[in-house]
Amino acid sequence: MKKIVIAPDSFKGTLSSIEVCEIIERAIKKISPETIVIKVPIADGGEGLVEAFLYAKGGAKVYTEVNDPFMHPVNACYAVLNDGITAIIEMAQASGLPLVGDKMDPMRATTYGTGELILDAVNKGCQKIILGIGGSATVDGGVGAAAALGIRFLDHDGNGIELNGGGLKQLYQISSENADRRLRETELLIACDVGNVLCGENGASYVYGPQKGASADQVAILDRNLKHLAEIIRNKAGVDYSQVPGTGAAGGLAVSLMAFAGAKIVTGIDTVIKTVGLEQIMEGADLIITGEGKIDGQSLQGKAPIGVSRLAKKLGIPVVAVAGSAGDQVERIYSEGITAVFTTVRDCVPFETAKKTCREDLAMLVENLMIFKNI
Amino acid sequence: MKKIVIAPDSFKGTLSSIEVCEIIERAIKKISPETIVIKVPIADGGEGLVEAFLYAKGGAKVYTEVNDPFMHPVNACYAVLNDGITAIIEMAQASGLPLVGDKMDPMRATTYGTGELILDAVNKGCQKIILGIGGSATVDGGVGAAAALGIRFLDHDGNGIELNGGGLKQLYQISSENADRRLRETELLIACDVGNVLCGENGASYVYGPQKGASADQVAILDRNLKHLAEIIRNKAGVDYSQVPGTGAAGGLAVSLMAFAGAKIVTGIDTVIKTVGLEQIMEGADLIITGEGKIDGQSLQGKAPIGVSRLAKKLGIPVVAVAGSAGDQVERIYSEGITAVFTTVRDCVPFETAKKTCREDLAMLVENLMIFKNI
Repeated sequence: MKKIVIAPDSFKGTLSSIEVCEIIERAIKKISPETIVIKVPIADGGEGLVEAFLYAKGGAKVYTEVNDPFMHPVNACYAVLNDGITAIIEMAQASGLPLVGDKMDPMRATTYGTGELILDAVNKGCQKIILGIGGSATVDGGVGAAAALGIRFLDHDGNGIELNGGGLKQLYQISSENADRRLRETELLIACDVGNVLCGENGASYVYGPQKGASADQVAILDRNLKHLAEIIRNKAGVDYSQVPGTGAAGGLAVSLMAFAGAKIVTGIDTVIKTVGLEQIMEGADLIITGEGKIDGQSLQGKAPIGVSRLAKKLGIPVVAVAGSAGDQVERIYSEGITAVFTTVRDCVPFETAKKTCREDLAMLVENLMIFKNI
Repeated sequence: MKKIVIAPDSFKGTLSSIEVCEIIERAIKKISPETIVIKVPIADGGEGLVEAFLYAKGGAKVYTEVNDPFMHPVNACYAVLNDGITAIIEMAQASGLPLVGDKMDPMRATTYGTGELILDAVNKGCQKIILGIGGSATVDGGVGAAAALGIRFLDHDGNGIELNGGGLKQLYQISSENADRRLRETELLIACDVGNVLCGENGASYVYGPQKGASADQVAILDRNLKHLAEIIRNKAGVDYSQVPGTGAAGGLAVSLMAFAGAKIVTGIDTVIKTVGLEQIMEGADLIITGEGKIDGQSLQGKAPIGVSRLAKKLGIPVVAVAGSAGDQVERIYSEGITAVFTTVRDCVPFETAKKTCREDLAMLVENLMIFKNI
């Protein structure tokens, strides 16, 4: 094996994709020091997007104070890549669940801070913004973020509504007169890996509401409020964005940004792969190693290893997936270009125990694979 | 890979060594149909010894009625190999824990039935007997087994003592006048994989007594009684067998059989390897696959994979160990000739859950290894 490309997702809850890359590289080099190893940590739109892009493409972290889900100041950061015009923003930095801890309240939480991050990037001259939307605490249909960009959401009396899931009920009209004009020249890409639509039982409230703290009653209210928002948008913009796959992610964030800020929903993993230039990096490789914390039939739905393996399949390069563990129907991944899959967990122990040895376990697996390959 | 030899132990509690062989063979053939696969299920002296020998060497099962640990009739079986003179006996068939269930009583349990099995084999013309001693319910110092072969264990009044751990207290003298003379021409090999001596804190009572149901008081009594037996044997035979490593196994079975039946303690795994002719089978192989249920630093102590890998190391053939799980200090096994080790468990689940998928998991691991090897 002359050239190996390592392109894993993070092992959620244990290792970042950068750590995974480095452990695998060390293990390969220990057994086969002459092998050329190229590390491309991959993130699929959630956690780690900023770090992964900075690692792959270089750039700077920008720190700025914005409003958190409950409109308290919070320090957030995003990346401006070395081209000077591409910003990578993680929504969770401004509007994420980690910021609210055990005070989850999807009726009150707003995406306003996410809009402020976009605005800050535009102010710094960015013309392309990739927005990762994993881990949001909000179900506000994106009205907070759009408001930060100049859109006004008004009640029957022409007063601004509360910019959150509960406030949507009061929405009567939307004014985009004051929308930031620079948005017209900005490519705003929402990296999304789920196909859920805005409303209904597969929508933002019913599927993701409970994990954001919504009670059964609140789920129903939020779903109704999002439907109300979508109707007013349709009346104003003439387009029913609520039917676009992906508008159900991140509490409906995309629906307002698509209608009033020219946003597009793109596949997270494909955007990452394209932006980091993975195809060129892969050329001439003898093996691709990808992976994630848990690999299973679900991995087919736009997760990083499948994006990587589809590309490798096109190029005719074998792909080994290493995962912390493998769940049901893991065999389905073979059809997507994954050649072989191995797991690092090595004993019948609870996750919390396996977590403690995950670094050694991953190193041991890869070392043993390299030894076996060299037999 | 033109020729692969599969020589695993059983996966204790889940798969017999024969099943392990067959699952691995199918997986190899699925990916590399042209590979020559030779299966040699290995047992290290415990469970599965009879089956493993019959599989490797051919022969017949002999069924006979003997006495169980509490002197009730039980149907037991052993193997006579195709050479007609080698018998393979598992002590547990006559004197094992599975026969007593929850009625464990190491003060009363006797090895008499094990002696009857040996006698039956001698009666059938066997001249070499390999005795596996795993899983015994007894702590009688082998007086039961020796008595079945004609040795008399007498009290102060010249009456026969109770042939069990409790009865040893009454022992005053031993008579070997009536010992079966054919034993002189019989090679009686006790396959043993632990180095414990008869008495003391590393001895038969203290180490293994509790798992046979001995209370703390009984452990002390049994240890004292075994010491008493060893002294009387030393006085009669002039040799202190109690210091021989392995006499602490199987409730001290070996001490009487060595003194009065010419028995020798041999390493279980080495005896199996030699008897099945593993060295000849391995010649010209590109890879040996061994394995066991759980592999760890403990595997160094005479367990099957290490015996197999030491031999392979001598022959310069790489060895892959596959195990259900890998425990602490597994890296110590590399120095014994194991080239690489892989585990079948693939998720953080309890043993009872992993057990259910162990067949698919083993097949999946081996298939993926073969695929990876062929890349």
